[in-house]
Amino acid sequence: MKFLILNGPNLNKLGERDPSVYGSRTYAELAQELTAFATQHGSEADVFQSNAEGELIDRLQAAPAKGFDAVIINPGAYAHYSFALADALRDCPLPAVEVHLSNIHARDEFRRVSVTAPACLGQISVLGFGGYIAAMFWFLRGASDGNA
Amino acid sequence: MKFLILNGPNLNKLGERDPSVYGSRTYAELAQELTAFATQHGSEADVFQSNAEGELIDRLQAAPAKGFDAVIINPGAYAHYSFALADALRDCPLPAVEVHLSNIHARDEFRRVSVTAPACLGQISVLGFGGYIAAMFWFLRGASDGNA
Amino acid sequence: MKFLILNGPNLNKLGERDPSVYGSRTYAELAQELTAFATQHGSEADVFQSNAEGELIDRLQAAPAKGFDAVIINPGAYAHYSFALADALRDCPLPAVEVHLSNIHARDEFRRVSVTAPACLGQISVLGFGGYIAAMFWFLRGASDGNA
Amino acid sequence: MKFLILNGPNLNKLGERDPSVYGSRTYAELAQELTAFATQHGSEADVFQSNAEGELIDRLQAAPAKGFDAVIINPGAYAHYSFALADALRDCPLPAVEVHLSNIHARDEFRRVSVTAPACLGQISVLGFGGYIAAMFWFLRGASDGNA
Amino acid sequence: MKFLILNGPNLNKLGERDPSVYGSRTYAELAQELTAFATQHGSEADVFQSNAEGELIDRLQAAPAKGFDAVIINPGAYAHYSFALADALRDCPLPAVEVHLSNIHARDEFRRVSVTAPACLGQISVLGFGGYIAAMFWFLRGASDGNA
Amino acid sequence: MKFLILNGPNLNKLGERDPSVYGSRTYAELAQELTAFATQHGSEADVFQSNAEGELIDRLQAAPAKGFDAVIINPGAYAHYSFALADALRDCPLPAVEVHLSNIHARDEFRRVSVTAPACLGQISVLGFGGYIAAMFWFLRGASDGNA
Amino acid sequence: MKFLILNGPNLNKLGERDPSVYGSRTYAELAQELTAFATQHGSEADVFQSNAEGELIDRLQAAPAKGFDAVIINPGAYAHYSFALADALRDCPLPAVEVHLSNIHARDEFRRVSVTAPACLGQISVLGFGGYIAAMFWFLRGASDGNA
Amino acid sequence: MKFLILNGPNLNKLGERDPSVYGSRTYAELAQELTAFATQHGSEADVFQSNAEGELIDRLQAAPAKGFDAVIINPGAYAHYSFALADALRDCPLPAVEVHLSNIHARDEFRRVSVTAPACLGQISVLGFGGYIAAMFWFLRGASDGNA
Amino acid sequence: MKFLILNGPNLNKLGERDPSVYGSRTYAELAQELTAFATQHGSEADVFQSNAEGELIDRLQAAPAKGFDAVIINPGAYAHYSFALADALRDCPLPAVEVHLSNIHARDEFRRVSVTAPACLGQISVLGFGGYIAAMFWFLRGASDGNA
Amino acid sequence: MKFLILNGPNLNKLGERDPSVYGSRTYAELAQELTAFATQHGSEADVFQSNAEGELIDRLQAAPAKGFDAVIINPGAYAHYSFALADALRDCPLPAVEVHLSNIHARDEFRRVSVTAPACLGQISVLGFGGYIAAMFWFLRGASDGNA
Amino acid sequence: MKFLILNGPNLNKLGERDPSVYGSRTYAELAQELTAFATQHGSEADVFQSNAEGELIDRLQAAPAKGFDAVIINPGAYAHYSFALADALRDCPLPAVEVHLSNIHARDEFRRVSVTAPACLGQISVLGFGGYIAAMFWFLRGASDGNA
Amino acid sequence: MKFLILNGPNLNKLGERDPSVYGSRTYAELAQELTAFATQHGSEADVFQSNAEGELIDRLQAAPAKGFDAVIINPGAYAHYSFALADALRDCPLPAVEVHLSNIHARDEFRRVSVTAPACLGQISVLGFGGYIAAMFWFLRGASDGNA
Repeated sequence: MKFLILNGPNLNKLGERDPSVYGSRTYAELAQELTAFATQHGSEADVFQSNAEGELIDRLQAAPAKGFDAVIINPGAYAHYSFALADALRDCPLPAVEVHLSNIHARDEFRRVSVTAPACLGQISVLGFGGYIAAMFWFLRGASDGNA
Repeated sequence: MKFLILNGPNLNKLGERDPSVYGSRTYAELAQELTAFATQHGSEADVFQSNAEGELIDRLQAAPAKGFDAVIINPGAYAHYSFALADALRDCPLPAVEVHLSNIHARDEFRRVSVTAPACLGQISVLGFGGYIAAMFWFLRGASDGNA
Repeated sequence: MKFLILNGPNLNKLGERDPSVYGSRTYAELAQELTAFATQHGSEADVFQSNAEGELIDRLQAAPAKGFDAVIINPGAYAHYSFALADALRDCPLPAVEVHLSNIHARDEFRRVSVTAPACLGQISVLGFGGYIAAMFWFLRGASDGNA
Repeated sequence: MKFLILNGPNLNKLGERDPSVYGSRTYAELAQELTAFATQHGSEADVFQSNAEGELIDRLQAAPAKGFDAVIINPGAYAHYSFALADALRDCPLPAVEVHLSNIHARDEFRRVSVTAPACLGQISVLGFGGYIAAMFWFLRGASDGNA
Repeated sequence: MKFLILNGPNLNKLGERDPSVYGSRTYAELAQELTAFATQHGSEADVFQSNAEGELIDRLQAAPAKGFDAVIINPGAYAHYSFALADALRDCPLPAVEVHLSNIHARDEFRRVSVTAPACLGQISVLGFGGYIAAMFWFLRGASDGNA
Repeated sequence: MKFLILNGPNLNKLGERDPSVYGSRTYAELAQELTAFATQHGSEADVFQSNAEGELIDRLQAAPAKGFDAVIINPGAYAHYSFALADALRDCPLPAVEVHLSNIHARDEFRRVSVTAPACLGQISVLGFGGYIAAMFWFLRGASDGNA
Repeated sequence: MKFLILNGPNLNKLGERDPSVYGSRTYAELAQELTAFATQHGSEADVFQSNAEGELIDRLQAAPAKGFDAVIINPGAYAHYSFALADALRDCPLPAVEVHLSNIHARDEFRRVSVTAPACLGQISVLGFGGYIAAMFWFLRGASDGNA
Repeated sequence: MKFLILNGPNLNKLGERDPSVYGSRTYAELAQELTAFATQHGSEADVFQSNAEGELIDRLQAAPAKGFDAVIINPGAYAHYSFALADALRDCPLPAVEVHLSNIHARDEFRRVSVTAPACLGQISVLGFGGYIAAMFWFLRGASDGNA
Repeated sequence: MKFLILNGPNLNKLGERDPSVYGSRTYAELAQELTAFATQHGSEADVFQSNAEGELIDRLQAAPAKGFDAVIINPGAYAHYSFALADALRDCPLPAVEVHLSNIHARDEFRRVSVTAPACLGQISVLGFGGYIAAMFWFLRGASDGNA
Repeated sequence: MKFLILNGPNLNKLGERDPSVYGSRTYAELAQELTAFATQHGSEADVFQSNAEGELIDRLQAAPAKGFDAVIINPGAYAHYSFALADALRDCPLPAVEVHLSNIHARDEFRRVSVTAPACLGQISVLGFGGYIAAMFWFLRGASDGNA
Repeated sequence: MKFLILNGPNLNKLGERDPSVYGSRTYAELAQELTAFATQHGSEADVFQSNAEGELIDRLQAAPAKGFDAVIINPGAYAHYSFALADALRDCPLPAVEVHLSNIHARDEFRRVSVTAPACLGQISVLGFGGYIAAMFWFLRGASDGNA
Repeated sequence: MKFLILNGPNLNKLGERDPSVYGSRTYAELAQELTAFATQHGSEADVFQSNAEGELIDRLQAAPAKGFDAVIINPGAYAHYSFALADALRDCPLPAVEVHLSNIHARDEFRRVSVTAPACLGQISVLGFGGYIAAMFWFLRGASDGNA
């Protein structure tokens, strides 16, 4: 399986951002852990980050032609207002799951609503890098496993 | 690891509920799949369902004394108004993750807000039984893995 | 025709509750009047009351297997917040009509919205026991009579 | 008993309006069915329709002097904003019941609130012509039957 | 001075409407009192009532050509939603004052907002026929008397 | 008749405030005009102004003991948030009418709601000093004139 | 092609209404320009205006039987609250486009929402008579031209 | 006349996006149709698309210096939250019209409000490529034609 | 005096719940302290706890027949959404006071509104067990002491 | 213990204010009862009233220096909007409890929210003078008694 | 330049108020620092504080006659609800700037909206006494310096 | 001191944008004035502008490594919705102050809320270039000067 893992604004600063919220490991470590997990499971993971809304959309639009099978996206703050990214997710024929490094339901009011989540198959917002891994695991296991 | 897996109202009717939303496999199959997965990973899973808010709270309160290590809860519709269940989750010293069988962010307005999620470590709402499995996987992998 | 008539919290206190709103006849009289009407029309009515949300859901879930043809439900105050009961009504394959003993549209703000009504075929909220009778009459007459 | 049955805007197009919502029988059939039912029960039904808010109010104002005993009104879309019609219902000394051909609680957001219902004795919104019939039945049975 | 005094829906039923709110004198008495007051002050008052929104607009549009100097309007319930009437008031070159027979600020929530008042020079909502008289008095006295 | 005419904050600056809204005549001229009108009609008017909420309440509380028959109050901006003044008006046994120098319904959003108006017999908000005069005229004419 | 062009309240006063918003040409000129454009394109345009909500609905209901091919409607202020007109547009089998003489999105808050637009194929709100012409042009060009 | 036709995010995927909403023809076909229409009318159309908010603003800012006469913009999802684009439209001295390929008033709640439309001369949201054409037609016809 | 002291969900876990909010003494200590206080004042206190909404209602309904004179209720989280419990309080002929162990007005947004408080004689929300004691004290002192 | 008991606007009129809400005993009686109770318990109570927001703040600011141990405040209507008084309560190092003579949770909408309560240790809103007494009792008993 | 520096409620307690928010220096130090800065720049600063809304308005009204050139106002909590103070600022012909000692945009919800700021030339809300100084600096530098 | 001065969308068009709001001097003049002021005070100012959200975030992220001591940011319209920029400001270890060229509190509704201000030490929104200068002055003076 070939995964496109998209990360939105400020995620490149992992390790420097408030560690009580985002953990102390860096973005490089995240990328390494995700590609390692993919390799261990006979898959491939392309991990990309950008602060620019337009670039994230460009990548999503290009994904089917590049042979990706699934999208895992952490839209960062764009989750809360980028209807353009949401439209791109809706238009994209690949299955997508949204992840967050923290429990967004337990933080600021504005973080509780995601406008991109309704355009995905679901959302995983648990603590740490494990959320991305769980999403890959879910895809590898067969996604919706014929049950809804 | 010993998991308490709590299921709220109407989940006992899986397989009979609208299959386009909840899938066609039954609640018995869900319970079996979850306990099988736990066993395969040297763990144990106690799968419980009730339509009664009070009983779900009773079970949560009793969990620490019964030796459970973690809670996975699908509160069903109680997710959207049971502040009592949310308080019980907050009071419970065990780590908990909320799961939903469908992407609640893409359904009715009232299903987009969960009052119980802020009392958990996170929420997983993807399609099918895989969401529960992903939650167990996440716990077995070390939960927050020292990263947030 | 076999009717399941479900009554929610506090309806067992009819006759003692504020008579200017709920009338002076008792719950026992209501049950008697409904079963009598059913019998007169060659039908059967099982009249049940509970203060517990979970028990009302249990009864609804069990209804199809018990041979009921239709449900008439007065959810009492649960009408205004029990999404769990609403889900049970949606899951239940039997046709259901919601009734209220008073005109809920002319009372407190919170009583004007019913979260269970959208899960029924309709709602009848007129004064007195007549609302239940009108619902049975409507079912006996052929429900939607081939006209929407 | 002499019934005034008022129908608001677009109800004259029954049979042509979306049949999945309003059924396939025509307005003429509705009128006939209602007058037939009234006659069978030794009553009389005057069935009137208008697209004009003012005309519906005129009819309501004239009703007591014309010897009507009760009003059954389907205000159509006026239910959702005509405070003028609501005032006319409040001023009118005759008992009134509001009916709708569909379950307005399960449709568009704006259809869930009726400003005219609080000015009536109650509201019946079930599928088909049966709602009007149920209202007549309720009146003939003695309306609030001394119980609220 | 020549006054056009427009009355909206249900005001023709004064004397029959709830006397605790609207008083016990009739619409005919109102019309007589207003024309008498006008005459006493060397003026003329044309008192008109309609339940139809369109007719009230027609009258307003025709007023300048008929030689009226000022408009006093009690829009009844139309005050709360008729943006069409408000537009007609804005388009009309004659000065207009809105009156209400009761203190609308102390009644139902929906009566507290008037969409027509912003299209007038002001609003007078005090008890009884005196409100109309006070409006005429204010016009006769010179309206804004060079002071705002 | 003995009138207490209370003016709230900033009204003492009439003539200096934006003349396009409040007119060009001064507060002294207002006071003079009101006392003159009262005298002409065999009455008496005590015109008082204060920027302090507490002082306005003190005056209202003292009014019955000082022999006043009626209150005319222009609460200025206090109209929009002084629930304390509203309570004082409710407690005061004298009849009161609220006046504004401009049409508050056609100005800023926050000026459209008056929390003090529901505690009065009504509100007069037309342009200029004439609004106060109209209020006195209305009281002298017999206030509610036995008609609501 | 045969167009029914419906105009709502106050549009008959074009030329007299605030020219900075609605332009200085009259309603007669509008009607003439529209019929001229239709004729030039081998079509026919029936231009109708009414201040009465009910009459506009009557015309819409009668349109299919009279052989019209398309509806162009400027509902005036009814656009903002007439759910009855919206229902009539939904019931009408002819394609309809809503037009406004001004950019309603840049005016008062209440003008930004149109309840009738969702019942049309679209909305054109640009300055001047050109909006109507553009709507006719769009219909003549083939409406949705096989592209959505 | 020289037109700048700006297209926002995801419009480059026309033909692949949900055809029931956006039609089956591609973005290339749109561009070709628009330039062809312009040429036929002795004009010129520069059709540009970008997923990046900043680039759309850059183009707008550069437009006057490049000799454009008018702007036609389909901001895509940016219409619903890009106050930056709206400011750019306000700052731009060229006349602009907003277009949408579908009737945004009949779709998701968030699509009903456009923050960019108030910064344009108007909005055209009808089905298909015809909306762009109608906008060019309107400009070529003389835009507001001296009438508002 | 015989008191029924009802405690809602999670209060049985006092001493284990977050001590910075709920204190460190246990539910058993609370029950003992309340019964001791009652005994000292020649009264009796029946202290009951349940996590089940229905059971709390059952107890309330049974209270008059069991000879209780007053109800002191800490509904826990049910205070914020149980309209069913509120109805039971309204129906119950005994005087009731609501208590909370913490100042709910200074905590989460959802805790600031109590739907059950309006159905009681009042609410006491101060820190610690003292709130229950103060409520008993208030009842023993004569409740409203002839002063409101 | 030395209590500062502050009373806000209109409380000096107790006995004259609506007795069905505030009771029939006077403010002088309240002051006497409170000082008597304090004396009986070896304490002291300074009872102060003012209609002026600023004076209440002045007193609060001066309280620590005057040797007071605790504050009991009935802010009257200021409870609902005086953020200045709330700030003063927050700044004041003395413990404070808010009291109301009536159950504010069961009255007008605006009375249900108190902006000053979050700045106190809690709120007591039960009927009559007993609320103040209960607050003193609670303080004398040891306030939070080491339990929250 | 002669500055009037007005300080609202509770600012006299600087140094005693929560130092983590307001700093540890006292009000006397603030006054001294501001007058010193003014003197150093050949100006004069009159620093005034009051807890009373009315007194602050009185001072503002008197300012022009006393020869002040500019107003710097920290309204404290009155910023959030005193429309009376806002009106006084609007009426005052002197230029005014609002300052806050803390970043009000990052605190409680109610502190984010200032009703007085729209009546000033702007707002400066940065940490410490420096905000006042920056405001004086801005005025001394020429205020809007011919650039907006 | 080394300042990073970031300017958001459309600020490069200063001098061309509506001069009544933004002044008549150009962006080049602003940059020159700011660097000149910095130089005069022995500091350095790097003035940057971009219409692209992503680029502004990139610059912020790079600032600490480039040796900047403080950030002054005018986010333009991004202030009102860019949660991504707000997150970048929160993540950035440098102190930041937000400035606006106009008083945003006195303009359109949407401009009154800044989502980026809570992520800064404060906000300065006064007229003209002076706001930026005042911010530099405040930093040079010692920012929060040990007083909150």
